[in-house]
Amino acid sequence: MFESAEIGHSISKKVYKQREPELRQALLHAQYDLLEQAKFPVIILVNGVDGAGKGETVNLLNAWMDPRHIRTEAFGAMDGAERDHPEMWRFWQALPAKGRIGILFGSWYTDPILAHVMDHEKKARFNQRLENIRQFERMLVAEGALLLKFWFHLPKPAARKRFKVLEADPKNAWRVTPQDWERFKHYDAFVTVCEQALRKTSTGEAPWLVIEGSDPQYRSLTAGESLLDAINKRLAGQPPVVSSPAPVPPPALDGRTLLGSLDYQRALTPKAYQRRLEDLQGRLNLLTRDPRMAERSLVIVFEGMDAAGKGSTIRRVTQALDARHYRVVPIAAPSDEERAQPYLWRFWRHVPRRGHSVLFDRSWYGRVLVERVEGYCTQADWMRAYDEINAFEEQLASSGAIVLKFWMAITSQEQLRRFNERKATPHKNFKITDEDWRNREKWPDYERAIGDMLDRTSTDLAPWHVVASNDKLFSRIEVLSRLCEGLEKALAPKKARSVKTRH
Amino acid sequence: MFESAEIGHSISKKVYKQREPELRQALLHAQYDLLEQAKFPVIILVNGVDGAGKGETVNLLNAWMDPRHIRTEAFGAMDGAERDHPEMWRFWQALPAKGRIGILFGSWYTDPILAHVMDHEKKARFNQRLENIRQFERMLVAEGALLLKFWFHLPKPAARKRFKVLEADPKNAWRVTPQDWERFKHYDAFVTVCEQALRKTSTGEAPWLVIEGSDPQYRSLTAGESLLDAINKRLAGQPPVVSSPAPVPPPALDGRTLLGSLDYQRALTPKAYQRRLEDLQGRLNLLTRDPRMAERSLVIVFEGMDAAGKGSTIRRVTQALDARHYRVVPIAAPSDEERAQPYLWRFWRHVPRRGHSVLFDRSWYGRVLVERVEGYCTQADWMRAYDEINAFEEQLASSGAIVLKFWMAITSQEQLRRFNERKATPHKNFKITDEDWRNREKWPDYERAIGDMLDRTSTDLAPWHVVASNDKLFSRIEVLSRLCEGLEKALAPKKARSVKTRH
Repeated sequence: MFESAEIGHSISKKVYKQREPELRQALLHAQYDLLEQAKFPVIILVNGVDGAGKGETVNLLNAWMDPRHIRTEAFGAMDGAERDHPEMWRFWQALPAKGRIGILFGSWYTDPILAHVMDHEKKARFNQRLENIRQFERMLVAEGALLLKFWFHLPKPAARKRFKVLEADPKNAWRVTPQDWERFKHYDAFVTVCEQALRKTSTGEAPWLVIEGSDPQYRSLTAGESLLDAINKRLAGQPPVVSSPAPVPPPALDGRTLLGSLDYQRALTPKAYQRRLEDLQGRLNLLTRDPRMAERSLVIVFEGMDAAGKGSTIRRVTQALDARHYRVVPIAAPSDEERAQPYLWRFWRHVPRRGHSVLFDRSWYGRVLVERVEGYCTQADWMRAYDEINAFEEQLASSGAIVLKFWMAITSQEQLRRFNERKATPHKNFKITDEDWRNREKWPDYERAIGDMLDRTSTDLAPWHVVASNDKLFSRIEVLSRLCEGLEKALAPKKARSVKTRH
Repeated sequence: MFESAEIGHSISKKVYKQREPELRQALLHAQYDLLEQAKFPVIILVNGVDGAGKGETVNLLNAWMDPRHIRTEAFGAMDGAERDHPEMWRFWQALPAKGRIGILFGSWYTDPILAHVMDHEKKARFNQRLENIRQFERMLVAEGALLLKFWFHLPKPAARKRFKVLEADPKNAWRVTPQDWERFKHYDAFVTVCEQALRKTSTGEAPWLVIEGSDPQYRSLTAGESLLDAINKRLAGQPPVVSSPAPVPPPALDGRTLLGSLDYQRALTPKAYQRRLEDLQGRLNLLTRDPRMAERSLVIVFEGMDAAGKGSTIRRVTQALDARHYRVVPIAAPSDEERAQPYLWRFWRHVPRRGHSVLFDRSWYGRVLVERVEGYCTQADWMRAYDEINAFEEQLASSGAIVLKFWMAITSQEQLRRFNERKATPHKNFKITDEDWRNREKWPDYERAIGDMLDRTSTDLAPWHVVASNDKLFSRIEVLSRLCEGLEKALAPKKARSVKTRH
């Protein structure tokens, strides 16, 4: 992929001086239009060979445009908090909001490439990480981001020469470190691996642009004009269609559903409940204090129809936990900062660090439930969400998180009974709104959405636990006991060995 | 202060069982009212002697109320990012939004007390830190927070007994670490220092509540009922008045002002400008790459009337910087997440970590400028803001930040000329809005607000640089040269020794 970036591309200083002022002006205009429309973010990845002018280009883009609306992030070795989260967490934190430009120096390519070149990671793992990146970038583009991936290349002799020239100049000698020369020794291996990475991630929606870095004028003008062209085309046109949705699959021919097949009659007496509650809370408490938990995190998702008992169940769980190590995150309407970001961003904010737990009261599944049923997003959006959610949970799990998801299932009649009960109870009637009654009318639509959700997102890494919850006591005990079982399974020695711990 | 917390307070289990259900119910109601009104946050500090039941109380509060709307944060040793920011940064990140409850386990008292007990820090420094806390808490209360400070005390024999009891119980023995016994040796010194800390920070607006921790029933009920009482009183009443504002000081009798005394005629030829620009940008670039800068951070504030040239000056500065190490933060209307927090919160978010720079295009000075003039906040709010801003900047400076503030001064006539010029320039007329013309009418009010601001917030740690900016070329050079001087002064060996570096 680097062949045409080794032919010595260059343009004269004269041409550069002619075209540069016009380009700057146009870039600045495009940036202000972008800001004013605030419809999509621009994400620029800057990667490439050392010495090929990455840093210079980043500085130049900031000089050409208005740096007040650009966020530049350089990614080096991970710090403590970054190591204690899934790998992609730090990149999610750095995504620019709609209308703004984010320049990611380093980006999500650096670590997979270096880990493979330095031979810490084998081919299969390398390919897996590239596949994860493809999925991630596809999601960014589908969410509306304009993603530009610049790769700055330098032929080997030019790289060597560049280091030598810098070293000879007293003002710039500090720029060349022994580490640079050490890395230069691996130039051939590095370029081979990079070539593979680029090939596998140069997709239709997010292609790489390889720029030869030998000549500063050529390099700068190419990067600037590509950026200008991409922003302007996007401002003038439509966001790209990443995938047309397939037709919505029809419901099963016999009309039977998973939710319909549950036994809603199961119940517990208060006495049996009390005894089992105490047992299970004690067991859960011991499990969460297990020394192995210091290396893991815990993500528990509670979903269910209105009045299914999520809140009261969550309280039975948290009673067994130490408040210093968990957080409950109730999901309501997104804030304006959250609306300016890709859909999953507001959940990534709350991903727990190693040793901590987060309980989500409603979650990212809103995308394929309320947003699907109410039409808050397009069919294409929620159809791709299953895949995005699975990828998200896989990232959580592979960073050591234990992911447990509970669907608290009640029947329509039971919901009606609870609504009426709430209406009649003075201190509970604030919990029941017109919207709740309206949602009830769409019960069949919800049922279908739930069925699809359970089928498409129950994975071995993050299975759904569907709990018949018409009897509150039964369902709380059921949740607690599945929670304990889930933790025991996750902490079992055999399982633990397969989890990669990062340090 | 602990005398009445050593008399063996206790209540019977029977009384507890009678009162607890009612208290829980009432707390839950109060919490939902708080959430619905969303007018103020509740901040609960939990501090005290080891073994006095701090952790148990935190868990109990979470069990009694709805943990979905409580944020519990435990503060231990600082991690990398925390050490690289001013001390209070991590507490700002953990403040609850309006309507929510934050439980701070540990809090801003732990470190000053331990540092003094363990004798790393002398009395004077200890007192200074307590004074900073007083100011900080005063600000929280003035911003509307309900601040509750619980101190759990345990007489020495009870503390020893508690550890022994825990150790004897196989299920709880893990709770007592050798470090606990080590710390217990310092019990007397610790309690003496705590007593001083509490005395000096038990203010009218934020008093300590000392609770004896020997008896779990007494301790829990006291904490719960105090919290309930405080929330309910506040829900029913008015926010406390922390300080009535003094009358606004009159303008100087002779009508002369600092801004009026500047020489606005000073100008540079384009040729002189170009030469000095290159010199200064080179000098600035070298200064920011000085190895000593890795231990410092840089906060630059740009303020000035509309069209004073802030944006174009910022670009002349950033051209000399490496985009990997700086960020420009433009301050516009706050987001909804920012509006739910104390005024300074949205600036604390952007405080740079060690080794990084942030340039603010407008800043926290909006409080004493636009918010004062337009009446967006009360007189009491902006009158106390001078003090709060000075404290904020002092915290920045004492953590190693170099703080430089520029007021870019133009005359009313010059502003008019620039507005008309912008109106006439097609690609610039979006930069001039009706609001800009309205603001112009209030020029005399702004002039007075600016005068007060300069007088009250120009400190030796963070001086204002007032720059006559009628000539854009002159003012850019002036800013760059003062910036270089400021950095040189801050990096000078004598100055560097007085800066505390934290590791």
